Amino acid sequence: MMRRLIPRCAPRATAFLAPRRSPLGLFPAARQYSISPAAASETKLQDIDPAQLVLNKTPNPKSLKKPEDLIFGRNFTDHMLTIEWNQETGWLKPQIGPYQNLSLDPASCVFHYAFECFEGLKAYKDKDGQVRLFRPDKNMERFNKSAARIALPNFNSAALIDLIARFAKLESRFIPEERGYSLYLRPTMIGTQKTLGVGPPGSALLFVIASPVGPYYPTGFKAVSLEATDYAVRAWPGGVGDKKLGANYAPCIVPQREAMSRGFQQNLWLFGEDEYVTEVGTMNFFVALRNKQTGRKELITAPLDGTILEGVTRDSVLSLARERLALEGWDVIERKYTMKELDEAASEGRLIEAFGAGTAAIVSPVRAISWRGKLVSCGLKDNEESGEIATKMKNWIEARQYGDDAHEWSYVC
Amino acid sequence: MMRRLIPRCAPRATAFLAPRRSPLGLFPAARQYSISPAAASETKLQDIDPAQLVLNKTPNPKSLKKPEDLIFGRNFTDHMLTIEWNQETGWLKPQIGPYQNLSLDPASCVFHYAFECFEGLKAYKDKDGQVRLFRPDKNMERFNKSAARIALPNFNSAALIDLIARFAKLESRFIPEERGYSLYLRPTMIGTQKTLGVGPPGSALLFVIASPVGPYYPTGFKAVSLEATDYAVRAWPGGVGDKKLGANYAPCIVPQREAMSRGFQQNLWLFGEDEYVTEVGTMNFFVALRNKQTGRKELITAPLDGTILEGVTRDSVLSLARERLALEGWDVIERKYTMKELDEAASEGRLIEAFGAGTAAIVSPVRAISWRGKLVSCGLKDNEESGEIATKMKNWIEARQYGDDAHEWSYVC
Repeated sequence: MMRRLIPRCAPRATAFLAPRRSPLGLFPAARQYSISPAAASETKLQDIDPAQLVLNKTPNPKSLKKPEDLIFGRNFTDHMLTIEWNQETGWLKPQIGPYQNLSLDPASCVFHYAFECFEGLKAYKDKDGQVRLFRPDKNMERFNKSAARIALPNFNSAALIDLIARFAKLESRFIPEERGYSLYLRPTMIGTQKTLGVGPPGSALLFVIASPVGPYYPTGFKAVSLEATDYAVRAWPGGVGDKKLGANYAPCIVPQREAMSRGFQQNLWLFGEDEYVTEVGTMNFFVALRNKQTGRKELITAPLDGTILEGVTRDSVLSLARERLALEGWDVIERKYTMKELDEAASEGRLIEAFGAGTAAIVSPVRAISWRGKLVSCGLKDNEESGEIATKMKNWIEARQYGDDAHEWSYVC
Repeated sequence: MMRRLIPRCAPRATAFLAPRRSPLGLFPAARQYSISPAAASETKLQDIDPAQLVLNKTPNPKSLKKPEDLIFGRNFTDHMLTIEWNQETGWLKPQIGPYQNLSLDPASCVFHYAFECFEGLKAYKDKDGQVRLFRPDKNMERFNKSAARIALPNFNSAALIDLIARFAKLESRFIPEERGYSLYLRPTMIGTQKTLGVGPPGSALLFVIASPVGPYYPTGFKAVSLEATDYAVRAWPGGVGDKKLGANYAPCIVPQREAMSRGFQQNLWLFGEDEYVTEVGTMNFFVALRNKQTGRKELITAPLDGTILEGVTRDSVLSLARERLALEGWDVIERKYTMKELDEAASEGRLIEAFGAGTAAIVSPVRAISWRGKLVSCGLKDNEESGEIATKMKNWIEARQYGDDAHEWSYVC
């Protein structure tokens, strides 16, 4: 029944006239870049242009925290990258300026209708002190898809990667040298139109902030246990669960908190009467098991059917598995699978290991899943905190992130 | 399979310590109200307290627009009501101060994870010049449900109604005397915690802004035509489609724009393989038809099964229909019904009328629905812009909103 939804970056039909003045009051220099409405109507909308970058360094650089005191997403660097957009002009001059509050009209559509999408990627410092991004093209591709799905503007990916790279390099003093440390980058796009009518935003702001982060497992892997959620559903065919929209996150907190209240670190999202396994908390999910019929080893993850986030780490795990695990006799499979299948494999001793995959942890080994009142053990021995595949994947992916394994996935800033 | 999700206002378990300083920099007086963390841990969290209201009138009142120039949600009154919350103290002193920008850290969770929910209600001026709210208790009940579903704090409904009433009264000069005009009130709650970790917000802001609005149909009803959307899904069982969350709105814009690009004013949301009729654009949907078997007249709307917004106007229509239309021989029914049923009723001449129901328009008559390549006519004659029930409902509800029909639904400020 479903036709494919192709969100188009269609001409904006609203009669709303965005104010010529910056809606944000940020970086006054930006306001000087404007063309008359008459000229705009004759001109192609401007794309993001790195050559126009305005750099305004902070006069008050922050002192660095001790690496061991870094907590994910709590402390930020000196600066932020901002690019305003409006429907008459397109993208205005990119700005790098001091990290500062956003000043927004309370009627701004981001506060009311969740016109917001984001990305998460990291910058790493290699052994030569160079700053490297990991597969930023994948993030930009997804960022554009997310934006289009909620009628926010698209942009040239290479241009934004160039700007993010410059920003990461500018902030490189915040990235500790030690392995495991990185700079978490958060590109975000919000609708800034300040009217309550529900329609496509006539103005938007893209901003990038950066938070230095330590290793997810400072003292080695620590396997987590999950609670399968059967009373709430994260995503649906024809919905937006495959996009990185703010809208997909707030509704996940209560089920997550419920799982934690019963002693589980994360919840596992099931789908439908058949209880298909989809994602874990905010990560994609992989299971390794031995096929009941053939006895062959299989690494399985759910397919991109519109209900699964198109994870960059998911893609990296699949790619490395096909390149390297296949040689070791593994079949690498994207298919739907149920909680019942996992339970059966576990009870028959065929479940080898399971892990989440995402940018924050790379991989997150899973010890057990609470489902229908029983605890399904995912293959780890009591004294193990990670399976073989999760360990290999972490090492393989990190080697590419830090440039030890030279590869096109690594982008030198 | 679905258990009922009961979002509880559980103790907040995060270790995050919200800054003692206001995260917003709004209304400095508010910052003086704080208690020490030690005291907070021994004290019940404070609820919203109207007695603590701090009123700070603007020194620069706006000039009034001509009533005929008012556009929904584009112009706002002189002031706004704000109430900050944090997990140590609870709700801080309510403030009414000049309408102004919000100043928020770019890491604030409202920008990233859609921690936001809202309400829409109107204040009316009656023939004696009194300001009246319409069923604010229903809005507050839903507001609390929406907030709880995304781990935002709850509050005492009566206290917020009292504050909103005072705010509406303060702004009464913005409400024109003429019938059809009103003051649209937009209570909004956003998460303000400024960290990127995905978890329950440790701080929040509730604000109310107000926009004077004119009649939805300044020159009488104008029936709309709809496009049935079969490629995207608004809501699903176990999801959050019954809550007034920002998350439910941005994803609706592209299907809405698609419908408009083909000449339809709104889209109609279908659900599932059976194509159940759920909602129209951002309104609930009613159909009046003659039962195929019994020949009886039926007013039908979809039931509150978790995929339908619990509309206040929907409830008012149902209530008035049961009170008054039943006497005229109508059966008033909440049940699932399909697009196929409507099409059949239309082709057999049994479809009497159809209309959307929501706060903005009260009722919005529907002329036709585009579905599977054909146009299903909804019962209006070519020279009619509204059916009998839609017209009656608009008059009945307006009479209660403006206090002509004295009723407990109307709350005198």
